[in-house]
Amino acid sequence: MKTFEEYLDMVNQAVSHIKYPERPANLYDPIAYTMGQGGKRVRPALALMSADALDGDLELTMPVALAVELFHNFTLLHDDVMDRADVRRGQPTVHTKWNDNVAILSGDAMLSLSMKYLAQAPAYCVIHAFELFNRTAMKVYEGQQLDMDFEKRYDDVTLEEYMEMIRLKTSVLLGASCQLGALVAGAAEATARRIYQVGENMGMAFQVQDDVLDVWGDPATFGKATGGDIMCGKKTFLLINALHMAGGADRRELDYYVTGEGKDAAREVKVAAVTAIYERLGLREHATDAVRDYSTRAIEALHGCGMGAKQHDVFVELIERLTSRTM
Amino acid sequence: MKTFEEYLDMVNQAVSHIKYPERPANLYDPIAYTMGQGGKRVRPALALMSADALDGDLELTMPVALAVELFHNFTLLHDDVMDRADVRRGQPTVHTKWNDNVAILSGDAMLSLSMKYLAQAPAYCVIHAFELFNRTAMKVYEGQQLDMDFEKRYDDVTLEEYMEMIRLKTSVLLGASCQLGALVAGAAEATARRIYQVGENMGMAFQVQDDVLDVWGDPATFGKATGGDIMCGKKTFLLINALHMAGGADRRELDYYVTGEGKDAAREVKVAAVTAIYERLGLREHATDAVRDYSTRAIEALHGCGMGAKQHDVFVELIERLTSRTM
Repeated sequence: MKTFEEYLDMVNQAVSHIKYPERPANLYDPIAYTMGQGGKRVRPALALMSADALDGDLELTMPVALAVELFHNFTLLHDDVMDRADVRRGQPTVHTKWNDNVAILSGDAMLSLSMKYLAQAPAYCVIHAFELFNRTAMKVYEGQQLDMDFEKRYDDVTLEEYMEMIRLKTSVLLGASCQLGALVAGAAEATARRIYQVGENMGMAFQVQDDVLDVWGDPATFGKATGGDIMCGKKTFLLINALHMAGGADRRELDYYVTGEGKDAAREVKVAAVTAIYERLGLREHATDAVRDYSTRAIEALHGCGMGAKQHDVFVELIERLTSRTM
Repeated sequence: MKTFEEYLDMVNQAVSHIKYPERPANLYDPIAYTMGQGGKRVRPALALMSADALDGDLELTMPVALAVELFHNFTLLHDDVMDRADVRRGQPTVHTKWNDNVAILSGDAMLSLSMKYLAQAPAYCVIHAFELFNRTAMKVYEGQQLDMDFEKRYDDVTLEEYMEMIRLKTSVLLGASCQLGALVAGAAEATARRIYQVGENMGMAFQVQDDVLDVWGDPATFGKATGGDIMCGKKTFLLINALHMAGGADRRELDYYVTGEGKDAAREVKVAAVTAIYERLGLREHATDAVRDYSTRAIEALHGCGMGAKQHDVFVELIERLTSRTM
């Protein structure tokens, strides 16, 4: 068993060795650009780590890991068009650097490229891998659509709906990454399903932690200015809870800043005011509890996977690091 | 062996029985809308026909045929966003009826849905089918990118480049449809490659014929007003040839209408003038010769497939009908 960093190194190596055709340049350059921007690459590393922990072959797992990373980057590329996001990983997004059409088409090509890698999974698990992958992809799209639907709604989005949205949009792909590794390792059906739960719960913890960091993170380590979600009135674990809990003056102030005249207030004023409401409602602790709860569930699911102590520890360390992360 | 109409009927039946989840409505309604609009459905019918002609099982071929049709409709959906096309098959396009984001995301979902059907190919050919499908998909994207690149160029697009573009954008998918049918039928490698050539050459003939119909077709049977390509200065077999052949007054008149002041001339004036230039240059005959040439190549490729006379005749009839079509 290797450390998480060693799996990451293997992924980074493999990603840097992917060869893209040269022409048409407007189709392939944006793919090379996107894949060259880095990112956390947690998903492909999880696939390798899961396969290795269940005595799978890392070389056989790599195409599947690359399929997951290509798919994830394709979704980011298209999401950035839909969300009109100009910057990703500190660099201009594809639709900003090129244009929308280039972003749409090169994203499509990344999805098909992802399928090309998935087809290189070992013959004994390729059909199962495709079924899992396609089912997961549909869920990711459902999550993105729900996220966009939420933008047009205000305080009627329930916490349950929000948790289901982040489960679909983010967590299922982390779960599938683990399960794909298990499939290549030839793990028993029950084990594969358990390790899926490890990834899915990790994903939930990760996403709620993301909402926390956007408010209370240290901009120096978080990598971007905090308060971004507050500024654009994004439905997060914090806002949705606040809308359900806040009463009286707090609720009036929240409405003022999210949908009222204070919507376009100066950044430092608006962020400070909404953050103060979250703090008065105890939402920082509430969110941190939720993160801890999902981490615990991920670790519990791990117990059912029948891994050795060393393998188990690498997972636990990663879970703890991802969910107590500051970046 | 059935008639082409009977294969079409089977495809139409199967398409109408696809069940889409109900929610999120903005993700699945546009897919049901697109698949319910009809279209020629030549590609899935070709897959069935090819399988049947090579003694394959039609029921086993159907998921592959549906995968092709879903993929084709996904490309149209995204192309319509990129080309800002408002109408397709006489109805508003998805990005017009909903919006761009819905069109992008539901298109993505159609591609993954297509992969879901492809994964249902028989185990003995599923990997081969995936390799062929993904390779074909990349070519289709390359063709669409080249088509968009051509929009920014004028008279330096060579006929060779144009023919390569339509081969990638249109013909390879017709070829792949035939080859996928052959794979399900368990045909020999050489036969599968030959029947690919049948489809690819049919596609070339079909596309050049499309350029002809856009100028000289009967609007009543063609289903849309003629002159559309001329009005928007689209690079077609006719325009590219004209730009290379026309000299003197003809060339000046062509430049005037395509890039000069006559660009926004009244429809009847511009279409009549450019059509007259095409006719003076003998391009109607030239294009018709090209269509006949590709049809002949398709029929020649057919000879190497080792089909019975009946099977052969159904293909020849379809080739002749598609390439002498008026609609």
